[in-house]
Amino acid sequence: MKLCVISGDGIGREVVPQAVRVLRRLLPALQIVEAEAGWDTFRQQGTALPAATLAAARECGAVLFGAVSSPAYPVAGYRSPIVQLRRELGCHANMRPTLSLPGCGAAEGIDLMIVRENTEDLYVGEEQSDGDTATAIKRITRVASRRVAETAFRLAQDGGRHRVTIMHKANIMPLTDGLFRDAARDVAADYPQIAVDELLVDTAALKLAQAPQGFDVLLAPNLYGDILSDLAAAFGGGLGVAASLNLGSEAAIAEPVHGSAPDIAGRGIANPVASLLSLALLLRHWWAQPTLAARLEQAVRRTLADGIATPDLGGEATTAAFCDAVLARLD
Amino acid sequence: MKLCVISGDGIGREVVPQAVRVLRRLLPALQIVEAEAGWDTFRQQGTALPAATLAAARECGAVLFGAVSSPAYPVAGYRSPIVQLRRELGCHANMRPTLSLPGCGAAEGIDLMIVRENTEDLYVGEEQSDGDTATAIKRITRVASRRVAETAFRLAQDGGRHRVTIMHKANIMPLTDGLFRDAARDVAADYPQIAVDELLVDTAALKLAQAPQGFDVLLAPNLYGDILSDLAAAFGGGLGVAASLNLGSEAAIAEPVHGSAPDIAGRGIANPVASLLSLALLLRHWWAQPTLAARLEQAVRRTLADGIATPDLGGEATTAAFCDAVLARLD
Ligand SMILES: CC(C)[C@H](C(=O)O)[C@@H](O)C(=O)O
Ligand SMILES: CC(C)[C@H](C(=O)O)[C@@H](O)C(=O)O
Repeated sequence: MKLCVISGDGIGREVVPQAVRVLRRLLPALQIVEAEAGWDTFRQQGTALPAATLAAARECGAVLFGAVSSPAYPVAGYRSPIVQLRRELGCHANMRPTLSLPGCGAAEGIDLMIVRENTEDLYVGEEQSDGDTATAIKRITRVASRRVAETAFRLAQDGGRHRVTIMHKANIMPLTDGLFRDAARDVAADYPQIAVDELLVDTAALKLAQAPQGFDVLLAPNLYGDILSDLAAAFGGGLGVAASLNLGSEAAIAEPVHGSAPDIAGRGIANPVASLLSLALLLRHWWAQPTLAARLEQAVRRTLADGIATPDLGGEATTAAFCDAVLARLD
Repeated sequence: MKLCVISGDGIGREVVPQAVRVLRRLLPALQIVEAEAGWDTFRQQGTALPAATLAAARECGAVLFGAVSSPAYPVAGYRSPIVQLRRELGCHANMRPTLSLPGCGAAEGIDLMIVRENTEDLYVGEEQSDGDTATAIKRITRVASRRVAETAFRLAQDGGRHRVTIMHKANIMPLTDGLFRDAARDVAADYPQIAVDELLVDTAALKLAQAPQGFDVLLAPNLYGDILSDLAAAFGGGLGVAASLNLGSEAAIAEPVHGSAPDIAGRGIANPVASLLSLALLLRHWWAQPTLAARLEQAVRRTLADGIATPDLGGEATTAAFCDAVLARLD
């Protein structure tokens, strides 16, 4: 078993090594392959995702991607390494669960998962501009829509879930969002035991804010999934604990949802929970190690329930101390 | 003074006449011109926005648009009448305030306003599909971006507000969303007394959910404004009280944010607050009647503070009874 570890920039360099330390306890034989990506890499090598990193990621199959800084204004030659990596590795689905974790100020009874299409929509990067008028292409294909829907329904079924809600804005975009919705409904027909419904994305944002407990699996095109998963994170304890897994048939990328957080970087106080729970997703859905995944999740839960937390959650633990506490609770 | 009244479908037909009854008390000489639009209109006349309605709206300048039903699946010849009306009347900005109203379960201390670009972005309706691949055009122009930014900053200044936050996703769409952001920043330079900052739209959704009190004016391209204004409504007491004004130089459309609500239509219990507060926006920003606007807003606030509310807010008042109570409190 191999894991390609990309710490990236800022707090990525703090949470990733600590999370990997915990993972090693669960998988002592795990081989770690370190690789570079991000803003510092761009400044040194002229690319934010070097070919060597891509090759290492491909070879390992499993990746932990920390966080990267990105320029506020366009910089020639710079492309988002995570968006590129998702596409290059064929990670077509992005799983983003939101849970009521203890000690995070999360509302009770939330257990939802957003499954976000990860390769197309407005993320195809096809833009044009003459300086006064700019256009971007939103592309939706039946193949990618079916594929991510298939993943969502299979995850629902395997996870003992009951309902998939398709998010779209087909009242304004009947052809693109309509295609996404229709492809997902076609796939739904193969899962008669999972209920399916749909919501306009604006209504979904409202309902999610009013009653996140009312959702089970939410299936969304790329951009709506991006917005709604950050929103959902607000009800699950914030970005410090928001985990994700980019899943394909050739590779999977565990990725904390947070960014590189330059404001707190370098102080050793970043929250490692998002990285730990992303690794738990990798254990369960990529390495097929549900028992190890549950052990890791339980240990994180117990640590939080015992009132141990980093400053973003009102605690005083450092990143390392939190991970020590998790290790002490791994049984 | 003339008002073109378009009740539309469902509860639009219930809240609009009642809200107009209240408005008449404030403007006894107001001339009402009734016009048709919506799904029933489409079924009868083959168009959801008849030419006569558009002409009446143009002639009056001021419009109250209730709510319309729309088909879940594409229907040949059907186009959203409100999207069309916004464009045809040149209502380039959509103001959507969220306030902490009494008796609505709203969080304390919220007083934000979303200013949404209202004519372009993915709403241009340029889609293509071969059945397996569909594309939609997202179009952003400097002219429209500047124009809506101008409105946002002017409203901020005139309303004694302090900060405008530009929402975008320029890390993924540097040319289109970058143009929106840059045009807005250019306009900001003309308003040195108003602070300006920016947020990625996903981060904005998260922060809005965590602390809506932290926002003042939010300036957004069309689609992000659509999603985030529904979201903001969740913290201001829900869609029953969410008001909006579509504003241009030739016309303004007061528009409750809610839909036609077929589930409760016909029972006379729909919440008229969204329509009443939309009319208050029309009074203040179109008819330049700030005193009348404030009287109407005060009367609505007092009614709610007195515990009078429709069932969506946990009360027992009918639409008509609520408006009676508002009339009794207009001083
Ligand atoms: C950093 C950015 C490119 C990324 C995205 O938009 O997908 C992030 O917001 C996320 O959700 O992982
Ligand atoms: C009904 C729909 C066309 C409309 C929109 O998307 O603008 C609505 O959601 C709104 O926010 O006014």
